[in-house]
Amino acid sequence: MTLFSRDAQMKMMEATVSNAEKYLGHFCLLLASYTRKTAKLRDKADMLARQLHDYASTEDPELSICMRNFSEDLAMVQDYRQAEVERLETRVVAPLKAYGDIVKTKRADLKRFNADRNKELNELQRLDKIKQKNPADRQSISQAEVNVQKATINTDRSTRQMEETIFDFQKQKLEDLKKIFMDFTMVEMLFHAKALEVYTHTFQNMQTMDIDRDMETFRKRIHVNDTYLSSQPLQTLTMSHYPSPPSSPYRSPHTDLLQRYLNHV
Amino acid sequence: MTLFSRDAQMKMMEATVSNAEKYLGHFCLLLASYTRKTAKLRDKADMLARQLHDYASTEDPELSICMRNFSEDLAMVQDYRQAEVERLETRVVAPLKAYGDIVKTKRADLKRFNADRNKELNELQRLDKIKQKNPADRQSISQAEVNVQKATINTDRSTRQMEETIFDFQKQKLEDLKKIFMDFTMVEMLFHAKALEVYTHTFQNMQTMDIDRDMETFRKRIHVNDTYLSSQPLQTLTMSHYPSPPSSPYRSPHTDLLQRYLNHV
Repeated sequence: MTLFSRDAQMKMMEATVSNAEKYLGHFCLLLASYTRKTAKLRDKADMLARQLHDYASTEDPELSICMRNFSEDLAMVQDYRQAEVERLETRVVAPLKAYGDIVKTKRADLKRFNADRNKELNELQRLDKIKQKNPADRQSISQAEVNVQKATINTDRSTRQMEETIFDFQKQKLEDLKKIFMDFTMVEMLFHAKALEVYTHTFQNMQTMDIDRDMETFRKRIHVNDTYLSSQPLQTLTMSHYPSPPSSPYRSPHTDLLQRYLNHV
Repeated sequence: MTLFSRDAQMKMMEATVSNAEKYLGHFCLLLASYTRKTAKLRDKADMLARQLHDYASTEDPELSICMRNFSEDLAMVQDYRQAEVERLETRVVAPLKAYGDIVKTKRADLKRFNADRNKELNELQRLDKIKQKNPADRQSISQAEVNVQKATINTDRSTRQMEETIFDFQKQKLEDLKKIFMDFTMVEMLFHAKALEVYTHTFQNMQTMDIDRDMETFRKRIHVNDTYLSSQPLQTLTMSHYPSPPSSPYRSPHTDLLQRYLNHV
């Protein structure tokens, strides 16, 4: 091994750490943002669920039941989305975030290794200097050679340690990335599977909504029967100053539908 | 039918339109916001897919293939999310938005109906006035009675038209809401089903990633063989000033893995 290839090795190790820092940093930021946006989507859908729930109470039984079921299903999907958000935070974003510190530690290890390498280089330069100045001073040259050898052995050990460290780092990174992205995929799969299940149920429920029944209720409520109006217009109109009873027909929805509705709630 | 119950009918019709305006307005805004948030989620995931793609080219074959596949699958899910966004816009948000104009038209219809009702009330008041002032003026009373009768018939026709209009409005609203929310549910189902399908494939692919193979490649690239260093330290170290050839071993990944990789691309 030459010092050059050792230098190349050092650069490669630094590049390994820097590359991990760069990309895992990007992944962390983007997945944190993805998680936040998912949480915002959950908020909007929760607001919609609440509005649907409120709206349900203002409509006739068939639409009311349909809106209430839809509201509940939509809220349930948001509960699953909340689970998705929490899992993404703990299983995906947090372990990626941890690489910020891991990278710092590895960089410190690299610096230590580099210091050893520089020490060896210094000893080597000292030896060259002595050889040039006093080529006959066997004792000084011998001592300098011993120092170089010591530094070389030291560098050699540091190199081995560093190789081991960077090897472990890379292995850990591969294992972590595999796990993190498999977890991401699994978390997403679980959410999509649950959402699909709930919405399938929602869709089937909606299909059963009987618009004609609600329209019958609505017609009874909205329609005023004034067939006698044309025959006795004045008499009827003179009665206009007396209020009609508060239990006007439009306040009582179709009884059996109401019963069905109450049974359902 | 009394004027009071007609007044109640009028209020109920107005309430029907106002209630639709209020809630369908809320649904429209919330679903438009839900759609925009979905689009933002798509953007973030697309950015992640690009980073994964870039990262793939910096790693050894096994992780590289894995990241590239993941990037492609993630991008594919975003294409389905884009389809979801477009469908939500056209099938859910747009028809809800249309209710803004529908409600305006219905309110104008209600105003016309109310004007007819007021006309009848005026004629009735005129008749009462004449009866009080000139109870013996049979001709004037008779004429006023005819006017009241005409106005009443007019109101009656307007009432029928209005009932029909509000009935149609309510029926259309029920049909539209059923369709809009079934479309929403179907659009979501389609997206979740596709996402689940793609991610299932992603997960299976990721499982096959062979970390040990990449680590073997990495070890070969990162490791410098200097067993001869300790036996000939000085000689070797003196060679340090000569650069090593550009085709250093760490630039050539494990050949059969590369081949597999190239075959895969």
